[in-house]
Order: sequence, then structure tokens, then C-alpha cells
Amino acid sequence: MPATFSINDTQNMAIALKLASQGIYGVKSNPMVGCVIVKHAKIIAKGYHQTFGKAHGEINALQQINHQAQDATFYITLEPCSHQGKTPSCTQAIIDSGAKKVVIAMLDPNPLVNGKGVVMLENAGIEVKIGLLENNALTLNQGFIKRMKTNQPFVRCKIAMSLDGKTSMSSGESKWITSEIARLDVQKLRANHQAIMTGSGTIINDNPLMTVRLDDVNSTPLRVVVDSKNQITDTSLNIFNTDAPTLILNPTNTKTFDSGELHLNDVLTQLGNQGINNVLLEAGPKLISAMIKSNLIDEFVIYMAPVLMGSDANSMLNLIIKDMTHKIKLNIIDIKMVGDDIKITATLK
Amino acid sequence: MPATFSINDTQNMAIALKLASQGIYGVKSNPMVGCVIVKHAKIIAKGYHQTFGKAHGEINALQQINHQAQDATFYITLEPCSHQGKTPSCTQAIIDSGAKKVVIAMLDPNPLVNGKGVVMLENAGIEVKIGLLENNALTLNQGFIKRMKTNQPFVRCKIAMSLDGKTSMSSGESKWITSEIARLDVQKLRANHQAIMTGSGTIINDNPLMTVRLDDVNSTPLRVVVDSKNQITDTSLNIFNTDAPTLILNPTNTKTFDSGELHLNDVLTQLGNQGINNVLLEAGPKLISAMIKSNLIDEFVIYMAPVLMGSDANSMLNLIIKDMTHKIKLNIIDIKMVGDDIKITATLK
Repeated sequence: MPATFSINDTQNMAIALKLASQGIYGVKSNPMVGCVIVKHAKIIAKGYHQTFGKAHGEINALQQINHQAQDATFYITLEPCSHQGKTPSCTQAIIDSGAKKVVIAMLDPNPLVNGKGVVMLENAGIEVKIGLLENNALTLNQGFIKRMKTNQPFVRCKIAMSLDGKTSMSSGESKWITSEIARLDVQKLRANHQAIMTGSGTIINDNPLMTVRLDDVNSTPLRVVVDSKNQITDTSLNIFNTDAPTLILNPTNTKTFDSGELHLNDVLTQLGNQGINNVLLEAGPKLISAMIKSNLIDEFVIYMAPVLMGSDANSMLNLIIKDMTHKIKLNIIDIKMVGDDIKITATLK
Repeated sequence: MPATFSINDTQNMAIALKLASQGIYGVKSNPMVGCVIVKHAKIIAKGYHQTFGKAHGEINALQQINHQAQDATFYITLEPCSHQGKTPSCTQAIIDSGAKKVVIAMLDPNPLVNGKGVVMLENAGIEVKIGLLENNALTLNQGFIKRMKTNQPFVRCKIAMSLDGKTSMSSGESKWITSEIARLDVQKLRANHQAIMTGSGTIINDNPLMTVRLDDVNSTPLRVVVDSKNQITDTSLNIFNTDAPTLILNPTNTKTFDSGELHLNDVLTQLGNQGINNVLLEAGPKLISAMIKSNLIDEFVIYMAPVLMGSDANSMLNLIIKDMTHKIKLNIIDIKMVGDDIKITATLK
């Protein structure tokens, strides 16, 4: 029987989830985690994991109350860690604080440690309830969770296109298809990713900065370029400025197919090995099509401008499909207006 | 100062508008009109124009109360007619019934009679208020209104396409891009139009029926084919069956450009002259593009399936646009899901 939760439980976990999300620019390869400690129906401490390498959310909360939480209930967005590092594990710290009950949104996605924290808590006589607002917790850390399970990051593919599916004029001109509001939305999207990936063609044609340009956000995603033909040699290109780190993947450092094209699965595994939880793919039709063919895109975010660019313009894909039975099917997850543009979120079916 | 209206006024006019819309399959080249008669805050009669050539909405309502409406208030979605035909005008009938007040959603759009009914009523000592729910009334009869003003029908262009803007595979295959629910929605859309227009290419390639196939609706829009090259000669084609009338427009009966293409403005004027208020354009990329170039499309209804058809498939347009400054801009009017497909309503900017 699944655990049942009260409205108060749900409210407290919602606060913990909101707290957790504040770690988005700081936790890097770690999960975002929030923790709320409640005693006599009152929140006595709140914390979240703020910075990679620094204290976890539970510890940040416990420090506010001098690690004294006798008979309190903890609301934590992720199962607390059970392995001791330089400091005691979060699970041990919760036990030591005198906790009575722990409510957890989701178990640790790492199959090696999944459930171990819960067992430790229960063995210490603490009541544990699991699964409150689990879907929200899963969505919050979808990149981390995917990497734990597959060793590859979550790949979100952003496309800016016209209503007739075009991403540039035949001349290559593409500035600008979408509105300023949509482009600001893309900046926010970029900030939420640890890496931004594109192909060598985009670098050579557009010489983009591939950085986050938001006044109030400090996020410097890794710039990743898929360069199958070793074309990115000019160090005066914008991607080599000091605003963010850059990784060029080419046949020297990445597996290739017989065709000479990079093995995109290996590209993602390399990023996973570097602790990259999520990648924003902002590429041309060729790389996007290759990623689709390899079934490596987890989510599309399409900004569709209310314009028609005509039959001569370049399509969003560079992918020949012979007949209707082979069309690529998507699930629409969300659709909304962003300024004058339509923002469509979808997954491959 | 614009007229002010009470909540009761608005409720009564909303009922009249709803009644009016029931005339959609019957009024043909006439406007849809609804009428509600209220006395002592109670509706004593309701009517609408049901069938072309038969009684107007006001008369249908008056007949229910034996033309006795002493001191009553009339709510009418369109200014009543003031010209006497075989029977007295609606305006005269309202005056004769003893009405005290008449509330009208909008004036007659025909510039030749616009305001005449109101003057007649006022001259008879009846209070007249104009403009209640006017936008709803304008939308209800947008085709009729456009024809009154321009002698051309309202043109709605329906397109079924993939998310990447394709309307058929390179082989011509297009069955089916959108879902059954979207195609049912198209049937309802067809039923609401007096004519369905396409090009000769679609007729030759697909041999469509171009009919309304809904169990509970009796609507037989005129089938119109733009046939610049006199290609539609085979009388065994489905469009020549007896399910609905068919009009082939070719250089014999329509003005042409030097290029031999039909003058699309003349096409629409011919339809307007036949009393066609609204046309659903369901055509291939060539005719749609020509209609866009001539700025003859009033509204697009795009059913966008969550599928990708690839770079080899045929685009929704057959129209070369050189650079971003010449892109065609649209206004998005509405966007919603119809089954799994996205339905976008838009106008040319």
C-alpha cells in the first residue's frame, strides 16, 4: 500500500522542493536537495544544497538548530546519503539529531546506494515515509537521475524556427527568427544546463559566444563542440574566450564511426563521466538529425515564431524520411506562448 | 458616449447570439440573426433566421406572440431590415408590435442600408441602444460582413502539416498526417463554410470528395476548383458526383494573368457574386502560396501533428523568400490541442 500524507506533509515537502531548486546554479554534478525540519507543527529549520563540494541540504538545515531536532519530522526531497566521507553521512546526522520521522520525496537514483539511507534510519527506530511529491522531485533532478542510471546526461534540444519549420534562410541568415522575449527565455534555459552543445558548422558559420548573458545569474555552462572533421582550430573564435570552459570533441578524443562521424553515444558518455547532468543541444539541422537518429534526445524545446520563411529556406532537420510509416512521432508535453512565439516542449515517442 | 448595458441586457443578447448561430447551415448567403423579446424582465419570445428565403429572426419571434409586444424590449444580433419586400420589413413589424426599446448588437454592415432601421425605430419613438456584444456579433457573421463590404467571401485556409512544416512526402503521400480527431474537426470546419476551394493538382492527385461527412449535419458546400490549365475534364472524378454542387474556374470563365494563371481576386469576386460568404481553402502549397502572395487569406487554421516528416518532404508553401526582412508575419489568434495535434488559428499581419 502506498504511503498516505497529510496536507501539512505536502505543504512542507513543497517548501523543501522550492528550496532545493535554489541550488540550480551551484550544485553542478550533484542533485538539488532541500530539507525542512518541523517540530510541533512549526518549521524550525530549512536548508538546501547550495554549492558543489559544500554541505548537503540536511546539514545546512541542522546547523540552524545546532543539530538538535529531538522528536522532529524531516521533509527531504531526496533520500539522505548514507556513506561517510570527510564528515558523517546525512543519515547519521539525522539519527544523531534525535529525529522521530523522515518524509522523503524519492529514493536515491544511484542503484548502488538506493534505499540504504532508509534502512539506516529505520534501524535507528525512525519512521520513514517515501514518495511524497515524487514526480516533482523526479523532474527537479531529471538530469542527475538519468546520469546515475545511464552515465549520460539528459539532452534537451532547443530549436528556434518559423511556423513552416525553417531555421535559416538559404543564405544561412537566421537573425532573428524568434522575438527578444523568446531569446531571453533561451538564456534562462541555457543557465539551467551544465553544458551547451553544438556542431562545428554552427561555430564556423555563426561564431557564437555560447554563453549565458543574464545580469542576475552566475552560470557558465561548458561549451561543447562536436567537431568530426577537426575543423575548429582557430583559437580566436568566440568559444575560446575566457567566459566559460570549452570542450572540443573530435576524432582524437572521441570514438568515430567508419564514416568518420563522431560516435554520439560516446560523446554523451564522455560528458556523463565529467559529471554533466544535462546538456542543451543548440545545433544545426545536421547534428540535430544525427542525434534524433541515434535516439539521444530526451526533450525538445521548440520556439516557433509566427512567421513563414518559404520553401527555399533550410528545414529544421537534415533527415530523409521515405514514407508516412517512418515519420518521427513526438509527444507534446507542454505548449505555451512566450511573447509572440509558441513554445512547444515535446519528447520522442 | 458609448451605450451602457445591464447584466440582464448582456444575458439576453448572449441568448440571441446563441440562437442566431443555429442558423449556420440554413441561412446560406444571409446573415445569421437571433432575436429575444423581453417583457417585465421575462423572455416572452425567441427566434432566429433559420432558412434562406424564409422568415427573419425577428418575425419568427414575433409569430410566437401573435405580433403583440406592447412595451417589450427586443434584443437583436443585427440591425433589423428596413426595406419592404413581399412582406413588411422587420423594422416595421417591430414598430407595429408596440415595442418600447430595441437593443442591437451591431448595425447592418451593408453601407447602403446601415443605420436605416435604427432611424425608422427612433422616428417611431422607440428607444434604441447599439453595440452590446458587438464583437461576438461581428465574429458570428464575419463572412457575410466581409462580403457586404468587399463583395468577396471570407477566406479561411486550412493546412494539415507536421511539426516541421511538411504537408506531404516527396512521393505525394499525405494520408494521414493528423489524427482522426483533427480530421473530424476539419469536417466540422467544412460544414461551417459555403464553399470549399482547392486547385486542380489536388483534384488530379488525390481525387477527393470535398464533401461534409458528418451524420448529424446537413451541409453541402459548393466545391470550387481553381483550374488555370483546363485540366479538370474527367467527369468521373469524385467532385462531379451528386453529393454537392461543383464550380470549376478556368480561363474560360475567369480573368487570367499574362502567365495564364487565374486572377485569384476575380475568383473571389465571382464567389462573392454568387452569395458565398465564406470559403474554406484546402489546397496544395502552390495555390496557398499564390493566395498568400495576393493577400487573399483572412485566416489560417493549421492542424500541426506532433510528427517530423524530414527534409525531403514537401513544405506547406511553394514560395521563395529571399531574406529575413521579407519573411511573412502572422498573428496567432488562438492555439489549442485537438486530440494529439496542435490547432493554430492565425491571420496575416
